[in-house]
Amino acid sequence: MRLALGVRYDGRAYDGWQSQPSGRTVQDQLELALARFTERRIGTLCAGRTDAGVHGWMQVVHFDTDIDRVPFSWVRGPNRFLPGDIAVQWAQPVPDSFHCRAAALGRRYRYVLSQSPVRPSLDAGKVGWSMHALDGEAMRAAAAHLLGEHDFSSFRASACQAKSPVKTVRRIAIARIGTAERCRWHFDFEADAFLHHMIRNIMGCLVRVGQGHAAPDWLREVRDARSRQAAAPTFAADGLYFLGPMYDAAWGLPPEVTLGAELADCENLP
Amino acid sequence: MRLALGVRYDGRAYDGWQSQPSGRTVQDQLELALARFTERRIGTLCAGRTDAGVHGWMQVVHFDTDIDRVPFSWVRGPNRFLPGDIAVQWAQPVPDSFHCRAAALGRRYRYVLSQSPVRPSLDAGKVGWSMHALDGEAMRAAAAHLLGEHDFSSFRASACQAKSPVKTVRRIAIARIGTAERCRWHFDFEADAFLHHMIRNIMGCLVRVGQGHAAPDWLREVRDARSRQAAAPTFAADGLYFLGPMYDAAWGLPPEVTLGAELADCENLP
Repeated sequence: MRLALGVRYDGRAYDGWQSQPSGRTVQDQLELALARFTERRIGTLCAGRTDAGVHGWMQVVHFDTDIDRVPFSWVRGPNRFLPGDIAVQWAQPVPDSFHCRAAALGRRYRYVLSQSPVRPSLDAGKVGWSMHALDGEAMRAAAAHLLGEHDFSSFRASACQAKSPVKTVRRIAIARIGTAERCRWHFDFEADAFLHHMIRNIMGCLVRVGQGHAAPDWLREVRDARSRQAAAPTFAADGLYFLGPMYDAAWGLPPEVTLGAELADCENLP
Repeated sequence: MRLALGVRYDGRAYDGWQSQPSGRTVQDQLELALARFTERRIGTLCAGRTDAGVHGWMQVVHFDTDIDRVPFSWVRGPNRFLPGDIAVQWAQPVPDSFHCRAAALGRRYRYVLSQSPVRPSLDAGKVGWSMHALDGEAMRAAAAHLLGEHDFSSFRASACQAKSPVKTVRRIAIARIGTAERCRWHFDFEADAFLHHMIRNIMGCLVRVGQGHAAPDWLREVRDARSRQAAAPTFAADGLYFLGPMYDAAWGLPPEVTLGAELADCENLP
């Protein structure tokens, strides 16, 4: 039987998603909890590997098991053994043809940025920071150069393992919450898939434009250069949230990970 | 010269506000940072001592100094030496007649509660949790018994140092954000002052009513009993935020701590 799980986590304490010899990764913690719950070794695959310090709002994993339990016991059980900053949100049986990575029709991320003369404190590690005011219209004009299918090599980390640097960015929405002096910015990204560090590298460029250090059309130059040297430095991981993959409604997964369904905005995001 | 500072902090790592021999308190960290910045010992007084694990959205302190600098250097300077989860938000010279505790005309707290079948993870330590659905109308009816001037001995910790258990609660507002199944609740409290553990003890009672384990009028019985034995257990500190004291506008302090000014709701609160 194949099971899909939704997993939420605060990435601050972990060396990213992907299992490592250190054991200090979210995958290691999840697999340890599954092993303690089932008394078997269970290997998981995820829909989107997140970096060190990046948070998961709705990571999706799948695995195969011959243990037959009601779905919610796969939530309650592992959560007893997971650290307090990681929790399974839902569990659902899926057909053997479901593969959380291959079946994903898209992925969504949010970058939360605090704009304030004062650095973060209450939300340290959960938001990025700009001391200077940002120009939303300039950032939107810059972001427009990234929409559609492009070679995103300029925004790709050297360690990136993706087969191709060509991705299709479907949406970048930039919203300000609060006053012009002290506010947060939400940068919402949707694409078929993202390269390693792609959003943090795009964020570095958008903030440079937003602070007036480059014109919006500079983003087109950066994009066309197809060289990491052209872009701004990688922005902090702190404010980055993997909102989750999106699947065809036919798989019957929860609305948060179903293409076309509204994303409930109420929970847990700063 | 007397200075007032606004201070924000994540309370999770600290044994509360008040200085202790351990040194692991917010006051200790602040005074250490002030000492490193000024190279003098500076003692501070605060408007509302918070318990271990309680967060400060806008704590206010004052102290006297003969060091004359532009106000914002009292923000930037200490913040260089403070840990990442504490930051001074603003600094302002005040008359010597200003006393952050005595001049406070009221205090506001918010309790943020996550209602979900799944325990917190991304926001662990920043929200309280109810696994079961809460009845907002029942909680509002219960809370109405606490409005006005009452002897709050039933909600007072044995360690409380207040001279009198009589306080005036001016407002309890209970708002749900999200769907009936998964949501957050904001419980906003305003009073002239609060007793030790008063809000966490009230929260324990309101949640008991909200979960249907007691009728709204039970809160009147608890109140009238004037005995800690009558109330529910103290609720977790996790979701409690000191929103700050409120002062007469004549002191010229920022709007967040001025009586009658709108509280900007955009920043940092879950």
